[in-house]
Amino acid sequence: MAKRKRYLSRRPKSTKALNQAPGTVTYVGNKEKAETTLEVIDYNTESYERHITQTPEEAFKFEEPNKVTWLNVDGLSETSEIIKVGQFYDLHPLIIEDIVNTNQRPKIDEYQDYFFIVAKMLYHKTNGQLEHEHISIVLGKDYVLTFQEAGGDVFDGVRERLARGKGSIRGRGADYLVFALLDAIVDHYFLVVEEISDKIEILEERLFSSEPTDDITLEIQELKKTMLRIRRAVFPLREVVSRLEKVNGHLIHNDTVNYIRDLYDHMVQVSENIEIYREMSWGLMDMYMTTISHRMNEVMKVLTIMASIFIPLTFLAGIYGMNFKHMPELEWKYGYPVLLLIMFLLFMGMIFYFKKKRWL
Amino acid sequence: MAKRKRYLSRRPKSTKALNQAPGTVTYVGNKEKAETTLEVIDYNTESYERHITQTPEEAFKFEEPNKVTWLNVDGLSETSEIIKVGQFYDLHPLIIEDIVNTNQRPKIDEYQDYFFIVAKMLYHKTNGQLEHEHISIVLGKDYVLTFQEAGGDVFDGVRERLARGKGSIRGRGADYLVFALLDAIVDHYFLVVEEISDKIEILEERLFSSEPTDDITLEIQELKKTMLRIRRAVFPLREVVSRLEKVNGHLIHNDTVNYIRDLYDHMVQVSENIEIYREMSWGLMDMYMTTISHRMNEVMKVLTIMASIFIPLTFLAGIYGMNFKHMPELEWKYGYPVLLLIMFLLFMGMIFYFKKKRWL
Amino acid sequence: MAKRKRYLSRRPKSTKALNQAPGTVTYVGNKEKAETTLEVIDYNTESYERHITQTPEEAFKFEEPNKVTWLNVDGLSETSEIIKVGQFYDLHPLIIEDIVNTNQRPKIDEYQDYFFIVAKMLYHKTNGQLEHEHISIVLGKDYVLTFQEAGGDVFDGVRERLARGKGSIRGRGADYLVFALLDAIVDHYFLVVEEISDKIEILEERLFSSEPTDDITLEIQELKKTMLRIRRAVFPLREVVSRLEKVNGHLIHNDTVNYIRDLYDHMVQVSENIEIYREMSWGLMDMYMTTISHRMNEVMKVLTIMASIFIPLTFLAGIYGMNFKHMPELEWKYGYPVLLLIMFLLFMGMIFYFKKKRWL
Amino acid sequence: MAKRKRYLSRRPKSTKALNQAPGTVTYVGNKEKAETTLEVIDYNTESYERHITQTPEEAFKFEEPNKVTWLNVDGLSETSEIIKVGQFYDLHPLIIEDIVNTNQRPKIDEYQDYFFIVAKMLYHKTNGQLEHEHISIVLGKDYVLTFQEAGGDVFDGVRERLARGKGSIRGRGADYLVFALLDAIVDHYFLVVEEISDKIEILEERLFSSEPTDDITLEIQELKKTMLRIRRAVFPLREVVSRLEKVNGHLIHNDTVNYIRDLYDHMVQVSENIEIYREMSWGLMDMYMTTISHRMNEVMKVLTIMASIFIPLTFLAGIYGMNFKHMPELEWKYGYPVLLLIMFLLFMGMIFYFKKKRWL
Amino acid sequence: MAKRKRYLSRRPKSTKALNQAPGTVTYVGNKEKAETTLEVIDYNTESYERHITQTPEEAFKFEEPNKVTWLNVDGLSETSEIIKVGQFYDLHPLIIEDIVNTNQRPKIDEYQDYFFIVAKMLYHKTNGQLEHEHISIVLGKDYVLTFQEAGGDVFDGVRERLARGKGSIRGRGADYLVFALLDAIVDHYFLVVEEISDKIEILEERLFSSEPTDDITLEIQELKKTMLRIRRAVFPLREVVSRLEKVNGHLIHNDTVNYIRDLYDHMVQVSENIEIYREMSWGLMDMYMTTISHRMNEVMKVLTIMASIFIPLTFLAGIYGMNFKHMPELEWKYGYPVLLLIMFLLFMGMIFYFKKKRWL
Repeated sequence: MAKRKRYLSRRPKSTKALNQAPGTVTYVGNKEKAETTLEVIDYNTESYERHITQTPEEAFKFEEPNKVTWLNVDGLSETSEIIKVGQFYDLHPLIIEDIVNTNQRPKIDEYQDYFFIVAKMLYHKTNGQLEHEHISIVLGKDYVLTFQEAGGDVFDGVRERLARGKGSIRGRGADYLVFALLDAIVDHYFLVVEEISDKIEILEERLFSSEPTDDITLEIQELKKTMLRIRRAVFPLREVVSRLEKVNGHLIHNDTVNYIRDLYDHMVQVSENIEIYREMSWGLMDMYMTTISHRMNEVMKVLTIMASIFIPLTFLAGIYGMNFKHMPELEWKYGYPVLLLIMFLLFMGMIFYFKKKRWL
Repeated sequence: MAKRKRYLSRRPKSTKALNQAPGTVTYVGNKEKAETTLEVIDYNTESYERHITQTPEEAFKFEEPNKVTWLNVDGLSETSEIIKVGQFYDLHPLIIEDIVNTNQRPKIDEYQDYFFIVAKMLYHKTNGQLEHEHISIVLGKDYVLTFQEAGGDVFDGVRERLARGKGSIRGRGADYLVFALLDAIVDHYFLVVEEISDKIEILEERLFSSEPTDDITLEIQELKKTMLRIRRAVFPLREVVSRLEKVNGHLIHNDTVNYIRDLYDHMVQVSENIEIYREMSWGLMDMYMTTISHRMNEVMKVLTIMASIFIPLTFLAGIYGMNFKHMPELEWKYGYPVLLLIMFLLFMGMIFYFKKKRWL
Repeated sequence: MAKRKRYLSRRPKSTKALNQAPGTVTYVGNKEKAETTLEVIDYNTESYERHITQTPEEAFKFEEPNKVTWLNVDGLSETSEIIKVGQFYDLHPLIIEDIVNTNQRPKIDEYQDYFFIVAKMLYHKTNGQLEHEHISIVLGKDYVLTFQEAGGDVFDGVRERLARGKGSIRGRGADYLVFALLDAIVDHYFLVVEEISDKIEILEERLFSSEPTDDITLEIQELKKTMLRIRRAVFPLREVVSRLEKVNGHLIHNDTVNYIRDLYDHMVQVSENIEIYREMSWGLMDMYMTTISHRMNEVMKVLTIMASIFIPLTFLAGIYGMNFKHMPELEWKYGYPVLLLIMFLLFMGMIFYFKKKRWL
Repeated sequence: MAKRKRYLSRRPKSTKALNQAPGTVTYVGNKEKAETTLEVIDYNTESYERHITQTPEEAFKFEEPNKVTWLNVDGLSETSEIIKVGQFYDLHPLIIEDIVNTNQRPKIDEYQDYFFIVAKMLYHKTNGQLEHEHISIVLGKDYVLTFQEAGGDVFDGVRERLARGKGSIRGRGADYLVFALLDAIVDHYFLVVEEISDKIEILEERLFSSEPTDDITLEIQELKKTMLRIRRAVFPLREVVSRLEKVNGHLIHNDTVNYIRDLYDHMVQVSENIEIYREMSWGLMDMYMTTISHRMNEVMKVLTIMASIFIPLTFLAGIYGMNFKHMPELEWKYGYPVLLLIMFLLFMGMIFYFKKKRWL
Repeated sequence: MAKRKRYLSRRPKSTKALNQAPGTVTYVGNKEKAETTLEVIDYNTESYERHITQTPEEAFKFEEPNKVTWLNVDGLSETSEIIKVGQFYDLHPLIIEDIVNTNQRPKIDEYQDYFFIVAKMLYHKTNGQLEHEHISIVLGKDYVLTFQEAGGDVFDGVRERLARGKGSIRGRGADYLVFALLDAIVDHYFLVVEEISDKIEILEERLFSSEPTDDITLEIQELKKTMLRIRRAVFPLREVVSRLEKVNGHLIHNDTVNYIRDLYDHMVQVSENIEIYREMSWGLMDMYMTTISHRMNEVMKVLTIMASIFIPLTFLAGIYGMNFKHMPELEWKYGYPVLLLIMFLLFMGMIFYFKKKRWL
């Protein structure tokens, strides 16, 4: 849980760096990686090359004209490497700050020669926990830069399509590549939201099937928090895609706009699903409350029936347990069986009364 | 319930196809049909022809100039057929993807030569379950293409009006046909919403008439979910119709705009009804809670009355059941009847007290 | 209650007519009237004439130039008569459909030569039930057409002012007449909302004054529904009036705009009142819940006090009711009075304890 | 409480006047005053004059050129006087209707030569009740008319500043006077809202300090209603001030705009405070619910502890109070003390158990 | 708590000054400081000077051309000093009023030659209480004025960067300094919001770990209030920054706009965090309710089990404690052990029944 708190409320600059100037580049995430890896993919319709290096200087050598260059940087903790990349591509200092500031929310900044996009990758780790990863994308004339905290499998599909020349991806420009990367991110959102749906159903079943424990309240609250965090990653990105669609300019081709509009549709769909699951999760707590109340009712009925039947009978027995000298009933021959009969009739009357009240 | 989850959260591409390129055509619905059926209706004011074939190639032969052509494709699982139709009419690859992607939400895409509309058909199956069907409509200059998962009766009214030349439908263009099709879909929304109204009333009655079971919570939650799903089909379509009304261009005639405005009115009315029923359904849970609480109150009163009356009396009887040697009351001649009288007075006092408190 | 459901969810076309073409004229209301009555009022500053007929043909004869003509049609079930009126005044088929479609929500349609306004008249019948009536108004150059389900008293004030020449109404045009009619409708909304206010107060008093029965939940829910229905009539009409104010054209004189703005103010005021009463009614259920809970608390306290006092005392009596051979206390001379004293002290201690806890 | 209902839902025209023409002048308030008082204040930087009369005719005599004239009318029940004032200043009939219609909500109407502003004065009477007063303000070229139901102290500060020439008020025009009057009204809103804050705190304390009675529910509901009424006066006035700021024209000087913007800031601040107190008051009911539930818990624990301890012990005593011939324990010499010991151990065990459960 | 009330609802003018003219300068805060301190910092890329004085006259001497001057005024209670500063820089009287009016909400006023910004500094005092401080900032051509209630450490980081020439701050203009100051304020918002996150977690843990006391309701309510107050400081400032970004003019350089946009991003992020924590805090009360209800359930189960088991057994014992002459069972040799056996079987049956019901 300590994790969540960090994610949500960490200031853009760490506490130690509170008085630093804006533009200061400090990595505040928690995915420490031994070293930064750079991957360069140069491609056009005919050719495709891929290089992996450890230093930016080496990476820059692979750039070729008439090709789209995709430079992917894995690991943000070595900020000096990031700064070098930034200087090579002439990025604004604030962009470099945002690349390593893993608390930055999704946004798009439009500069003269490039667009800067921040997004959040969401995926479930093998242990089932939801993982956030900070992704920065720079779209230039014929290059795309991506920066991620830890090398992920989210972009593997895109890499494969580039390598095999599948689909139309190699024949299109850098803007289409950015679309393909964002599309891969959004596809994973659907997976994450589907997981939420499953959790809601499991909780619903637990509410009804067996005796719910006190923890369920905590789990519902936890679920709500998870959804707040997912929303926080998804909703701003929707705005980003919407703005990308409307941007006019030399960086986005007309052809690609159709694809971005399609992507926007997907974003709207994810958002809608999230809202629907939020509404469902609101209902869970109410359901739990009524379930508890209903059970309390059952408990109270058992108590009331037992007490209402046996307390008067015990009183009757108490009467004839008294030691008065002059109690004529005690002397009667059939006093005992008659009393038993009366008790039995009372008992049956009570049973009948509760049956009529539908408590039994 | 597995069904619902699928409907809501399935990604645009199936899990296996997660890394596929956008534009890849994969049917993700669950209405597997042996084969795709194509129905071509050519008409103008004078003539009317209808053909049913299995292959697109055959269907294309029936197209005639100076006539409106309605090509209806039933069954989306044979994607190769869909692709052929798309190529014949020169549709954008993303459109073909959306035609078979049953998770696509309602939308309108405006292209140069045609409009592409996605809608959801809602109807109750004979077993009372709510059925969603994915409908795609393409409106071109003098043709209308419709794609549905399974041949439905929703458009039968339109077919009949075309065949019999009823109303003004044959004398108008392709745009009016699209309006008539959407109108048929919206008419069914009213039926579906009416069903919801009935369910709310049945639930209200069950809350009060008899002992409500624990299931009612589940049913209310289920009702809320159904309404969320209906909203999800209806609200985006309202936007679609609103945009259709505002579109200026060669595809929509001025005459038809009045009809589309009327259709928009109907959409608003359905939406309003949905919102009203949502508000009503929110009240249901509250009603259930107060009903439970009220009943608990009744149960507790019975218990309290029984216990308050008989516990003191039993105590009195206990007193005179003690075996002390020196208890003068036990020796008195009228000890027993006097005690009985006292007990009776206590009893009546209690009854009076609870009557005054209005617990009886 | 069957009534309400009908009102809210009926489709524009009745179930039997589901496949009819748009523009088909079918009366779907439930106010069957033997025959349609037509009332023609021709007036200008100098003269005033009023005729009542059964057939449209007769009514059209009374039209005179240089006069404002108000044709009021009572009863919508004879659709053929309505169609004749529509054709005489050259109304669009969709308008005629909406005139008899009592489920149409309030709206304004602007045509070249006339405006078409749909509104809902709300009034309380003598038995206290809320009645909806569908009103259509057509404003032309020098005529006003009104269509209502059953002749009502809502417009009687306007008729009287016309007849007596009271106010400035005869000196102004057809647009002012439409304003006067809408104003009469809105005035009745205030009455209806006032009624709601009374009902809320009665419910509040019932919640506190006496033992509330289970029905109160049902009544609160019913009240909420009534308010949803009132809103449904009032809110769209507010938009209608707002649009009427903004319309520029030959049909609305500059003078009248001030009056329409005033009418809009009234609409806003009714809407605000409705929203305030809605918020108040939300509070009712909460109040009921706390009232129940508070009462439960009282019940439980009585039970707890009785049980806590007498159960230990009964236990003590039970002790000395045991039949052990060797129980020295039983032999003591003052055993019995000493025990009674101890019991009394215990009793007083308990009373004191509960007094201190403020449960008594 | 009857008062509130009237305030909120009264129609613009009284029930008797339901069929009156718009523009009919009828006072519907409840502050009957014997007679209308007119106060004329003429001033410019150099001079200051003040006259009080009973008839409009007299008041009009005091008007002088090159001076700002403030005519304040106290008492709205003599509508004939109001009409005279209206005719002298050539006001639209609808304005005169609104001046005496105390149910009119705050608004601004812009006419060619003057602005008409309606506001609500809120203040606490000496008995602590919230009082509403209807204020109408007309701003002309060099005159200001104000109409109020009963002479109030709200404007006394402005009068004093005018008389003493304090501040810059005498050197500025009629527009600044209107600003000063509105400012005085808004200042009183702060006082009223402060009162609400106090009431919330008192309620919070009562919820926790002592045994809350059932009335607190009623008081919370009453508080919510009061806030709804305050909102109703304040929120529309905010719009009025906002529009006043944006108005371009000869009636508002550039200098005054800064002051009006400042006034708007204050309006926003009052509105925000109201919203904050509303949210706080929503929490009150929840707090009351949890308090009741928590107390119920305490009550139930006492009952459960008492019953759980003594019911088994009483059973044991009952066993040895049986009259079986052959009960060996009864004959044992130490039967009685051994049983007492067992009972004591049971008692201690129970105490320990409940301590462990933290119920004691 | 008295403090909070003051903060929220105090009128712009104190009660005594209710009838004062607008523009009257009265300090209404509660941070009385012995004297006002003025700090002048003159800097450009090459030089840096800092002076601290007690009187404005002295401070004005330090102003130098070609340098940016930052005049920071600490302590607002000596209004005459503030007025002098205002006159020297030719500020509008309303600005001076707002500088000392600590109740003024955050806003930006654009004047011809300068911008006036009001903000709220939030920080936690060493005793953990949330402190509000009123900050006014005036941005002129080459000067920045700041006014604060008590000298704070919030701006210390900026001072240090100026002194050391760190970052680019000395090389940029007055507009960048304003950005840096606002950035420092916003950075502290993150700290404050982080604190809220911690409090929510502590409350969550307390709800579950141990027996929650009644106070927790009060603390949750207190937390909600704190968040309302934080929102009140943060949300209007977001609008201020947004407007600052959009302002075109000679006061804000193009370069700085990028930084302000970045600041706006941070504001959005704080706002989002606040909203998320608000939603979480809403859940707390629900969680508490379900926790209480769940515990009540546990209590009731214990009671019901004890009573249901022992009440029937006690009744049986009571039967055989009666003193009837003719009770054959009493004479049987094995009557007693048989009864004990029956009782044991009943006991086991009950235990089994409750086990099956999962109450044990």
